Amino acid sequence: MIQFHPVLGSLKSYEAGKPIELVVREFGIRPEDVIKLGSNENPFGCSEHVAERVRAAASQMYLYPDDSYLELKNELARKFEVTPERILPGNGSDQVLDFACRSVLLPGDPVLINRVTFAMYKIYSLQCGAKIHSTETLPHDLNAFLELSKLHKPKIIFLCTPSNPAGDALSKTDVYGFLEQLSPNTLVVIDGAYMEFAAKKDPEKLLSPRQLTDRFPNVLYVGTFSKVYGLGGMRIGYGIGNAELIRNLYKMRPPFSVANLSALAATEALCRPEHVEFYLENNLAQMNRYETFAREQDLTWIDSYANFITLFARKNGKTSEEICRSLLRQGIILRDLKSYDLNAIRITIGRPEQNDRVLEALTKEFA
Amino acid sequence: MIQFHPVLGSLKSYEAGKPIELVVREFGIRPEDVIKLGSNENPFGCSEHVAERVRAAASQMYLYPDDSYLELKNELARKFEVTPERILPGNGSDQVLDFACRSVLLPGDPVLINRVTFAMYKIYSLQCGAKIHSTETLPHDLNAFLELSKLHKPKIIFLCTPSNPAGDALSKTDVYGFLEQLSPNTLVVIDGAYMEFAAKKDPEKLLSPRQLTDRFPNVLYVGTFSKVYGLGGMRIGYGIGNAELIRNLYKMRPPFSVANLSALAATEALCRPEHVEFYLENNLAQMNRYETFAREQDLTWIDSYANFITLFARKNGKTSEEICRSLLRQGIILRDLKSYDLNAIRITIGRPEQNDRVLEALTKEFA
Repeated sequence: MIQFHPVLGSLKSYEAGKPIELVVREFGIRPEDVIKLGSNENPFGCSEHVAERVRAAASQMYLYPDDSYLELKNELARKFEVTPERILPGNGSDQVLDFACRSVLLPGDPVLINRVTFAMYKIYSLQCGAKIHSTETLPHDLNAFLELSKLHKPKIIFLCTPSNPAGDALSKTDVYGFLEQLSPNTLVVIDGAYMEFAAKKDPEKLLSPRQLTDRFPNVLYVGTFSKVYGLGGMRIGYGIGNAELIRNLYKMRPPFSVANLSALAATEALCRPEHVEFYLENNLAQMNRYETFAREQDLTWIDSYANFITLFARKNGKTSEEICRSLLRQGIILRDLKSYDLNAIRITIGRPEQNDRVLEALTKEFA
Repeated sequence: MIQFHPVLGSLKSYEAGKPIELVVREFGIRPEDVIKLGSNENPFGCSEHVAERVRAAASQMYLYPDDSYLELKNELARKFEVTPERILPGNGSDQVLDFACRSVLLPGDPVLINRVTFAMYKIYSLQCGAKIHSTETLPHDLNAFLELSKLHKPKIIFLCTPSNPAGDALSKTDVYGFLEQLSPNTLVVIDGAYMEFAAKKDPEKLLSPRQLTDRFPNVLYVGTFSKVYGLGGMRIGYGIGNAELIRNLYKMRPPFSVANLSALAATEALCRPEHVEFYLENNLAQMNRYETFAREQDLTWIDSYANFITLFARKNGKTSEEICRSLLRQGIILRDLKSYDLNAIRITIGRPEQNDRVLEALTKEFA
């Protein structure tokens, strides 16, 4: 019998948002009738220019990627005004989180996360045998992070801003104040997967990877092409840090970890800011509709700086699980936050006509 | 200062085959004039049906993959006559190797590999802090593996058949005899990245993943879409084992580790055996030309069961490094095996017209 690593016993798998295929298989709904607003994808898809570039390159799928990912790194370097050696591409920003954990964590090492946050911080940390500590509030409370840091001396702190799945965001002033007081021995991973949405709504929420990592060599900024760029299927994200940090994380990176068409799509997406801007405008306008709905229905929600809104179910009404299941049968995929211990629903802000259907369906559920 | 994991100090990065972009950048050669026979890609590319399927799905890049990868697993299950739960998809077969290491290895655990073999076995093992033992011969010597197993009690043994970068292959009889004598506590990873080529040349070299893993629950078979299927750029491979083994390895798997277009391409590729068969025929026929060349030039080579041939440089002639550098300047990318401590060149068997140019250039080098 094979002796598996003892950490396997403590690991649970990530619960992914439900795919369209599942609704098609289970409820016999046609794929084109499914509304998928459970995984915070760009509801407009990627830029048509990006799709066209990928189509034109499809016959190159047989070639291994250029493992330097030079074109992509150059484009990211231009955007963020850093040198390419400060950039680490990943198979989704997820993989960059994994590199961070594996480059730093020894079994038993403390890691500090927010009470409710993206599930993979904990999973990757546990894979390394780390011990998880967490704050007690739903929004990020940086004072609590600081106190717990003094107590536990974490090797890594994960901050997610805007926060997934809650939607709140930290301000630049608060983050810089926090980092100044924190021990420089702690690696701070700042997950900016939804940063573009926050920056659009309130510039004070924008954290510049360059400024951050110029000033704090213990910060790793993580970004993704899965959200605003509409490339969630292609698995591509990046880390930005100072050169020394990135050089170390690179040692845990396997070769060719990003597909060639993915790197190409991401490179092209960076050259198409008009598609991003169009989406950001829609997101703000349509978010208003959900806020109005929540106000009218007297529901609790969290002010969101991302591309989703989190609505709490009524204490004496249907549970989030019941509501999500009912909508699923109608071909509407939302995210039940029960697995995060919240009686709440996370709704990706969709296209106007998708939101029409969602709001209509939700009205019945909350009636 | 951040304290990095102590294993980072011992890690070297994988030396990837040179990409076309590099030759274009460094030598100003037009991309269409570059002959890339250094990374054992399918020189005909993928099936045009596969490319067409990907083009048609390009607008779906915004959707996260179906994390169950059910369609792909069903197609692989059909091909290998196993149940889908015995299949583990990976971001390249590379990632499956990584899962295997991380699911089993604790710091200091022994791992046994062949003297000359695919570099990532060692790298992934070292990332886990394992101690590497290796045999002493270039071809796999299963008796030596058995003796060293008794001595070191390895947690993992890696067998690569056909062997990369040598090209020799183990016979079914020998592998089964070896596994019967080996402790069932050792995980045996059998990397069949080039298995389709061996099976075409000599059915006795074919290891069936189902038969192997039905009989030996400690075997993980690993396959890839990067070679015969012509999808090296898309990063997709798979592991096959018994259900219990796969369930355990799954715990180290991050969500969405394979891009949606990659899974789609692989699924379609499995439905296009005629493209594979065409390539396998070409490979055998063109391999003959390199063997004839080596015989005529009185060079040493290894009988190959893969899609490449390894030629040794003459002891008193140009080194493999000199030859490869000279060919690179002519736009021909081969793989110098110097980093494997061999004064030898690994040449992917190309299309007939590519091989014309390579053989002509090599004739001058060996003159």
